[in-house]
Amino acid sequence: MADQAHIQEAIKIQGQVVRKLKSEKASKEQIDEEVSKLLQLKAQIGGDDGKHQFVLKTAKGTRDYNPKQMAIREKVFNTIISCFKRHGAETIDTPVFELKETLTGKYGEDSKLIYDLKDQGGELLSLRYDLTVPFARYLAMNKITNIKRYHIAKVYRRDNPAMTRGRYREFYQCDFDIAGQYDAMIPDAECLKIVHDILNELDLGDFRIKVNDRRILDGMFAVCGVPDDKFRTICSTVDKLDKMAWEEVRKEMVSEKGLSEEAADQIGEYVGLQGGMELAERLLQDPKMSQSKQACAGLTDIKLLFSYLQLFQVTDKVVFDLSLARGLDYYTGIIYEGVLTQAGMAAEAQNGSAAEDSVSVGSVAGGGRYDGLVGMFDPKGRKVPCVGVSIGIERIFSILELKAEASAQKVRTTEVQVMVASAQKNLLEERLKLLTELWNAGIKAEVMYKKNPKLLSQLQHCEDSGIPLVAILGEQELKDGVVKLRAVATREEADISRADLIAEIRRRTSEA
Amino acid sequence: MADQAHIQEAIKIQGQVVRKLKSEKASKEQIDEEVSKLLQLKAQIGGDDGKHQFVLKTAKGTRDYNPKQMAIREKVFNTIISCFKRHGAETIDTPVFELKETLTGKYGEDSKLIYDLKDQGGELLSLRYDLTVPFARYLAMNKITNIKRYHIAKVYRRDNPAMTRGRYREFYQCDFDIAGQYDAMIPDAECLKIVHDILNELDLGDFRIKVNDRRILDGMFAVCGVPDDKFRTICSTVDKLDKMAWEEVRKEMVSEKGLSEEAADQIGEYVGLQGGMELAERLLQDPKMSQSKQACAGLTDIKLLFSYLQLFQVTDKVVFDLSLARGLDYYTGIIYEGVLTQAGMAAEAQNGSAAEDSVSVGSVAGGGRYDGLVGMFDPKGRKVPCVGVSIGIERIFSILELKAEASAQKVRTTEVQVMVASAQKNLLEERLKLLTELWNAGIKAEVMYKKNPKLLSQLQHCEDSGIPLVAILGEQELKDGVVKLRAVATREEADISRADLIAEIRRRTSEA
Repeated sequence: MADQAHIQEAIKIQGQVVRKLKSEKASKEQIDEEVSKLLQLKAQIGGDDGKHQFVLKTAKGTRDYNPKQMAIREKVFNTIISCFKRHGAETIDTPVFELKETLTGKYGEDSKLIYDLKDQGGELLSLRYDLTVPFARYLAMNKITNIKRYHIAKVYRRDNPAMTRGRYREFYQCDFDIAGQYDAMIPDAECLKIVHDILNELDLGDFRIKVNDRRILDGMFAVCGVPDDKFRTICSTVDKLDKMAWEEVRKEMVSEKGLSEEAADQIGEYVGLQGGMELAERLLQDPKMSQSKQACAGLTDIKLLFSYLQLFQVTDKVVFDLSLARGLDYYTGIIYEGVLTQAGMAAEAQNGSAAEDSVSVGSVAGGGRYDGLVGMFDPKGRKVPCVGVSIGIERIFSILELKAEASAQKVRTTEVQVMVASAQKNLLEERLKLLTELWNAGIKAEVMYKKNPKLLSQLQHCEDSGIPLVAILGEQELKDGVVKLRAVATREEADISRADLIAEIRRRTSEA
Repeated sequence: MADQAHIQEAIKIQGQVVRKLKSEKASKEQIDEEVSKLLQLKAQIGGDDGKHQFVLKTAKGTRDYNPKQMAIREKVFNTIISCFKRHGAETIDTPVFELKETLTGKYGEDSKLIYDLKDQGGELLSLRYDLTVPFARYLAMNKITNIKRYHIAKVYRRDNPAMTRGRYREFYQCDFDIAGQYDAMIPDAECLKIVHDILNELDLGDFRIKVNDRRILDGMFAVCGVPDDKFRTICSTVDKLDKMAWEEVRKEMVSEKGLSEEAADQIGEYVGLQGGMELAERLLQDPKMSQSKQACAGLTDIKLLFSYLQLFQVTDKVVFDLSLARGLDYYTGIIYEGVLTQAGMAAEAQNGSAAEDSVSVGSVAGGGRYDGLVGMFDPKGRKVPCVGVSIGIERIFSILELKAEASAQKVRTTEVQVMVASAQKNLLEERLKLLTELWNAGIKAEVMYKKNPKLLSQLQHCEDSGIPLVAILGEQELKDGVVKLRAVATREEADISRADLIAEIRRRTSEA
């Protein structure tokens, strides 16, 4: 397929060359030569009408969701959305593509992973790479200075897919952000409360939420003697500490990034530190760290944050961790990451997914404060401070899909409460009549689309798809004005009068 | 912007020409000449580093959904999804882009409206144009022969946008389809029942569902003397009868499509007919129509369909209409379309949206039977008969947005039940503590992110965003172990003990 695409692109260019020569009234020889090249290229794919084997697949790095996966996805979304709503969030949606220039200059090196649309005349467009940049564009465009919103939608990255670990080229992001000028750390603490509650309610096993602050990192680099122009590159090396041992990270700093050994060792002392509010207090007293105003501002905010987290009752899961760096350029303050501890990942490990990054795969949520991004879009550079969190929903889907596979419990893909069945032939009309009564009363119901289905195959369908009740019609039942209501699990049957049927079905399925 | 894109495309092509000449070791003069053309083009956009004004907009034909629009969208989706679920449907999802060749040859002339992705190496991809072709690809790829599924997702068409009438380049489709070999007309009738119930429940005003059958159309063309090779083009002219008067349609048939006047007039007699089961019976006796086996098969099915529709209690809205043609090539049997009658469109007309197609804008649902599409994807051509319906959700959003604007009623964009407020200063901690209690009990609650907000601004926020209750804390309340619970609408206040607060909030907001 890649070759095919390559040849087709070559044909396109060659066609343009030919058209150009013609429009410039080039010599016949020159044109003929280029035309013959074009024909040779076309011959390689069998000419214009050359048929090649049709490939039945989805695009690389993407997948369909089958009904079972959708049932899990719906459950996860419901949990997450109800948490966002509990915190008073509104929701917005933005188009799947943006003007290319809206995304330009926002993602640094990763810009090469952006999907561009073909120029078919008109605007140059790209698929969105995340939901944060479109959010910032939306705020600036509509001059919104205060909003608490969530946005759940797919984003696109031409990355190297690792589908068994939930890394796709098309994947969901699930973002909650608070924009507005507010008193310090109150919205930040709420974001952490949300990460806590969602990970808790999704029942993924034990987890921790690591917290740090960009200002503490920058202050630390300064007092350890990292040159200003190396802050970013050293920061991205520190970010690898969740995947690499310190010795390797140190080596990268010194050998690849040219940092002095002394500076690296000083960083090493700090990035090993973990704790809570008391660690922030200790570092505020640290003779070296306290020299950096930036670091002190960050540490003071960490202290304030922990005081709010105590009120929110989530400090048992939150760790102040100086090794947390996070890659994105746009963070300006608090940063955080929710990680599953080993217990939570047992299911995945069982599936034998590559061990090489079994440490880092634990990350299932992340976010931080980005006070400068909206200003990049505002014509007058007006800033709107923002803090937000993104739930790593694809990783969570993967874990829960594996869990569902491992467990004996069946995932239902429909919510049908009752199947309308018949015991004898020629009762299609009676079945459809009863079905209509049930539908019109809001009962989820179905029939088999056959004139004369066998009772056994009707019951089998209920077993297969988890339908709890069967309403069976027969000549006798019709005569008596009743329906035989059968509980699929227990096989118990009872005659229910037509007048009472709807109430009885509701009663029996009210927990479902 | 269009010019900009055009110049950039020209620069790209010229760059390729230069590279090609270099790789072919062309003469220095020849290369220099092309390079100078390239530089001239670059100068037009101010060279490589020429900065132009940043444009803050969404791509042409697309829009953001703001929180109010999202609230309406959510309500509409809930209504539709609960109907689909009532009928026992599962749901699936497919990627937003497909291999280009998956879409090739499925949409006839409209293929020019497909968005292609830029070839960045690898597969050639296109954005999905509808949900039906990906559904057929999914069935063939997974060898599924039976499924009842719905799929709600965005699709993409580089069409001429008409945003005030709900026609966008990115828009939702909302499809329900039944695939499988079943007894005639039972699933078809269920699709019509679904259209009926959804349009009814969405409360858009009066509506009709037009029904016809491709076989009746083809049979009619045959007996009216339309040559075989003109069936399709005449069919697409008939399809314009909802927008054009018969005289104009006739003129197009005769003058543009070259049909004989006699044939056109005979068609004219049929396409004016509307009715129910009795019309199908009458046409089965029609000396001309009854000569076509195809037409008879279609008419017999229409009769059967109406008998099921009677059982489903929806015949009052369904009309057998011989002028209904529907554009898509892939239909093979029953076709239908749900249209709002004038009353239902009053709101839109008020907004002054263009009158020119005020007749056709009424279409809000459509579908039909397509028994051949899945076979196009199966390597062995195995057929899976399908029938389905697509709800025209964007038109419905437009109508409901206009309705909401016109009505005095406020659209709530959050579901917050209670705001935790304070009457005096220095109560942030107490507010956060109570907020945590409420959140942990599943109550939707918020605070203002200020240390010392004014009571008035807290109450004002509740008025603005429709929050029904305020839980007010003050020194006295804390001392007494109570909370002052205020109903925003009536301004009534009552002291509630902390122990009873959650139950009281639940009681008061249980209808919400």
